[in-house]
Amino acid sequence: MRIAVLGVGLIGGSIGLAARKRIGAEVAGFDPDVAILQRALELGAIGEPAGSVEDACAGAELVFCAAPVSALPELAQAALAATGDGVAVTDVGSTKRELVAGLAGEPRFVGGHPLAGAETAGVEHARDDLFEGARWYLTPTENTEGIVFDRLHRTVSELGARPQAIGAATHDSMMATISHLPHAIANVLATQAAAHLGKDAERLPEVGPSFRDTTRVAGANPAIWGDIFASNGDAVAEEIDGVIERLQVAARLLRSGDAEALSAWHRDAGAHRRELLDAELAGGELRELRIRVQNSPGVLAELALALGNANVNIEDMSLSPAADMRSGAISVWVAGEGEAERAAGLVRGLGHDVSLVAA
Amino acid sequence: MRIAVLGVGLIGGSIGLAARKRIGAEVAGFDPDVAILQRALELGAIGEPAGSVEDACAGAELVFCAAPVSALPELAQAALAATGDGVAVTDVGSTKRELVAGLAGEPRFVGGHPLAGAETAGVEHARDDLFEGARWYLTPTENTEGIVFDRLHRTVSELGARPQAIGAATHDSMMATISHLPHAIANVLATQAAAHLGKDAERLPEVGPSFRDTTRVAGANPAIWGDIFASNGDAVAEEIDGVIERLQVAARLLRSGDAEALSAWHRDAGAHRRELLDAELAGGELRELRIRVQNSPGVLAELALALGNANVNIEDMSLSPAADMRSGAISVWVAGEGEAERAAGLVRGLGHDVSLVAA
Repeated sequence: MRIAVLGVGLIGGSIGLAARKRIGAEVAGFDPDVAILQRALELGAIGEPAGSVEDACAGAELVFCAAPVSALPELAQAALAATGDGVAVTDVGSTKRELVAGLAGEPRFVGGHPLAGAETAGVEHARDDLFEGARWYLTPTENTEGIVFDRLHRTVSELGARPQAIGAATHDSMMATISHLPHAIANVLATQAAAHLGKDAERLPEVGPSFRDTTRVAGANPAIWGDIFASNGDAVAEEIDGVIERLQVAARLLRSGDAEALSAWHRDAGAHRRELLDAELAGGELRELRIRVQNSPGVLAELALALGNANVNIEDMSLSPAADMRSGAISVWVAGEGEAERAAGLVRGLGHDVSLVAA
Repeated sequence: MRIAVLGVGLIGGSIGLAARKRIGAEVAGFDPDVAILQRALELGAIGEPAGSVEDACAGAELVFCAAPVSALPELAQAALAATGDGVAVTDVGSTKRELVAGLAGEPRFVGGHPLAGAETAGVEHARDDLFEGARWYLTPTENTEGIVFDRLHRTVSELGARPQAIGAATHDSMMATISHLPHAIANVLATQAAAHLGKDAERLPEVGPSFRDTTRVAGANPAIWGDIFASNGDAVAEEIDGVIERLQVAARLLRSGDAEALSAWHRDAGAHRRELLDAELAGGELRELRIRVQNSPGVLAELALALGNANVNIEDMSLSPAADMRSGAISVWVAGEGEAERAAGLVRGLGHDVSLVAA
């Protein structure tokens, strides 16, 4: 099999590495940045550097467009123009509607989005197992050729990913809910807190774990988020409209001062979150252990080692140092009640104060 | 010195332990739950169990009211009635305005709020170093007696905490921004995501790290949050009003599709968050390392051990398992550019893919 990769950064490079190693594919690559193309060749991410989209696409059965979201429409058109009957063209962008709508009549184009690797950039970080176990959304339309979709679906599986067909609008709306909205909210929270607190350094409070967690993704990866927000703006704005309505309800409830109703609202929210997270897990519901520790360099290792040696897997973790950096709290999430009890016992055995947070 | 602790749970019990061990104080305790009082005695959190508020307060120079927020007004009144000239009465509740306003004419009452221990409950978790290095807000008024405030301020320092005087309204507004608002927002996000995604299990997407982080505190500690929201409802609602305005601006910006403006908005938010977090740190700006790992039980320990052995302190950490639990990403925050580079080198030495996220 021969594939072309247009844009050889983290995702394109990883596709090349995986395709060469796992499928034994011939991989031609193109990148507008010649230095990056050269580096991809050195790293083995591509077998053949090409001087143009046309050269890269020559003889390919499958073309991956792996450029920034804003460059994809033009690149996909060029790939389609450079290829003929039966050749599949796809992309790896984080949003799908705009691109897919512009190419809706094209039987050979299928939008794609692997949920992997967004946190790093550059071919230096490319890996042949980047897509191992990762969801890879594909957005065929009613015009998509069966043979094209079949080849793409199979290849994505062979790269190690788990392909799933989904409508482009559904994809973007889902991403708006689960990814783009949290980023937008984190931005607003961080900005508001800075406006309220930052001006008067005397008053600057200790920033607690709730603020840290809730705003963690504020401003993350600025290089790609302008494009993502712009191309999925209306879906994210719609999510924001929903959040505004819910916040208005919450503000009314808060102003009512009804402790019982507020407690119920709060409890329900926790249950909703657990439902969503638990749906992913095979090992049982996530349970949280809260551990108070001295914030010395060795403590986390000691904890993790004790759990690791006993084969307890840490599904998620959050560390909140006290302001003086001498003590802190570590939250550790473990799947399943039994595992959580076992983990708590191990941590207690190390002499730490630990509590199993009520589900 | 003789002190009284009214309510001997986590906070009250820790005050007792610290006062006995660090100041050599005589500590009388009262709790409406006799079993808890007995347990506090066994654990050494109090020296003398008392059968009533009056008995506990007899002879005390300083009285700590450590009951749930909704019970504090009545308890503080009882403590004031049971004590006479020169005896200081304080509390440890998470919100201050309501309580302080109700006792505004009392020269012997000073509101208090230690930023410690909210994550666990019960005298079993009480520790004599719970307040070590922790901020402890005190809210004196124009009517507060100097001798009373001085004694409280000194004692709080002796318990290991860092006292800071602040107006009750400022305290509540600051807590609304930094703690109560993030909890409310997390609740709304989790609820909205469940409403949009939960009904149709076929469509349930992988829940990414941004959603995990942003909603982590949704529904946390339901036992205390009903009270906190109720007693600081208007300040939190005001914060929510501000968030709504900012979200409306964001929604307009998103609908405009202006990638450049969105990118600038996103970038600014990241800068705002870093300013707030960096203000706490002595060791330099927080830098984030993103590490891709196999999600096996031993990996986290190996990482933490390598950093710990090299005396690199992990200030914050976030772990995002892939859906199949076989691989994942770990983000680790380290203070200072040099430390971050050193940490990255250590992690690379273990064979992991690591990137230093651009500040």
